[in-house]
Amino acid sequence: MTNGIKDGFYNEITPGGFGLAIKAGKVLFSEQSPFQKVEVFETDSMLGRVLTLDDLMMTTEGDEFHYHEMIAHIPMMHHKNPKSVLVIGGGDGGTVREVLKHKTVERVVLCEIDGMVIDACKKFLPTISCELDNPKVEILVQDAIEYIKNKKNEFDIVLIDSTDPMGPGEGLFTEEFYTNVKNSLKPDGIVCAQSESPFVNKEEIKKMYNLLKKVFPICSTFTSNIPTYPGGYWAWAFCSESVEPLSYFADNRYDDIKKSCKIYNKEYHNARFALPNYLKELL
Amino acid sequence: MTNGIKDGFYNEITPGGFGLAIKAGKVLFSEQSPFQKVEVFETDSMLGRVLTLDDLMMTTEGDEFHYHEMIAHIPMMHHKNPKSVLVIGGGDGGTVREVLKHKTVERVVLCEIDGMVIDACKKFLPTISCELDNPKVEILVQDAIEYIKNKKNEFDIVLIDSTDPMGPGEGLFTEEFYTNVKNSLKPDGIVCAQSESPFVNKEEIKKMYNLLKKVFPICSTFTSNIPTYPGGYWAWAFCSESVEPLSYFADNRYDDIKKSCKIYNKEYHNARFALPNYLKELL
Repeated sequence: MTNGIKDGFYNEITPGGFGLAIKAGKVLFSEQSPFQKVEVFETDSMLGRVLTLDDLMMTTEGDEFHYHEMIAHIPMMHHKNPKSVLVIGGGDGGTVREVLKHKTVERVVLCEIDGMVIDACKKFLPTISCELDNPKVEILVQDAIEYIKNKKNEFDIVLIDSTDPMGPGEGLFTEEFYTNVKNSLKPDGIVCAQSESPFVNKEEIKKMYNLLKKVFPICSTFTSNIPTYPGGYWAWAFCSESVEPLSYFADNRYDDIKKSCKIYNKEYHNARFALPNYLKELL
Repeated sequence: MTNGIKDGFYNEITPGGFGLAIKAGKVLFSEQSPFQKVEVFETDSMLGRVLTLDDLMMTTEGDEFHYHEMIAHIPMMHHKNPKSVLVIGGGDGGTVREVLKHKTVERVVLCEIDGMVIDACKKFLPTISCELDNPKVEILVQDAIEYIKNKKNEFDIVLIDSTDPMGPGEGLFTEEFYTNVKNSLKPDGIVCAQSESPFVNKEEIKKMYNLLKKVFPICSTFTSNIPTYPGGYWAWAFCSESVEPLSYFADNRYDDIKKSCKIYNKEYHNARFALPNYLKELL
């Protein structure tokens, strides 16, 4: 079985030898960009419409909040006054939507290498991409590796909402890139990067955190459930030069954020850094 | 696509319209018991051998600890001196194995309706069933609904390690059954029952907790990741007449338990009762 849609089912078998099966409906969009195959299909399941890139699950209307609330609010709520935010990748717009729930934010730069992802999501996934036209958002269809090179002391928060460490996302998992990201941050800045499945992608996680720890004096990990990602369980790196995990919580912004979220709340936030033994040993 | 093995893949589409795909190898056991189809097959995946009942995922060698460590240690570590434990269902033996890690335990009753499950697991899943011959274990191949009826003040801990609320497990989700379970407990006893997928089985969860709350003055919920269960995320009910969640932690037994677990540790334990907003609203 190859990944992708066949005989009415989308299948995705991850390197662990198991994975996802979804009853697939009509394919709404399927094109090859200069970087990858971009596909959106309907389902008659609770997942609603689904976005895949190169036949790998990116997001679904039905479960996207599991990912986007975590990558945005966990780091954002650690910052006293986040004004300037960079999102790398994240062309579906879900992370940008969550970031803009924080009223302190004045500017969000979305740096996505593949314009086709943005266009397809604007057209077919409006509940996810709905804030991409917000005047606070600056969209750059550009390679983030180049964009970040000369940025100094510019961002409060950088969110690396990338694909896996193969294909177009590969260069976003290097020491050089992480060093440039660190330089782009203000002194109290925080980086949050998606860091794969703790259960399925053990080797990738190990490699990634070894690099991050070379660059950032503070490098921690949090995890949460993602129903449609390998193992149903995902990790994010939390890195900073000065902000320790759970050292600060923006109580003044909490009510706004909580009431608009399907998952995120303060107890859930605090619980995220408690890791299973097997993951602690890996890191 | 129907659930089960076809063309070299095990597929299980849950009521949410999405689910699991596993590369399946040799079928080691496949028979119809008086209650259900019992099947064990090999995989060449990180999941190892897999047990299914009526083509629904029960456990795998590769990820079973995600479930068994939670259902056993979360309630057990809330008890000062658990000596007498009842496991309902759980014929694979994984829950019994975890319970016996607590040196206070003198007696474990396993009440499993289907002897074929026990026999198949003893033969084909030895890493899971390995403690079923321990002299502290009393195995009853019997309907737990009948067994529990006349038990009074007998158990410190009751673990309901059942199948879903359809088929042979159905009667384990009723007010009468829960009342009998409560009566079987000592005053400081604790019940832990698997309570389905918070993301996929919302209606079942609501119904189950409505019944539990009628019976138990204290009824709480904890959750954790299960890679091979619907949505990769599972809930358990924590019920008692007198023990509040996180009101006690058995520090004197902690070192033994932690060092033998792949997931369970104290921080992870404490974090488990922090629930997503959508689940809090449901309960």
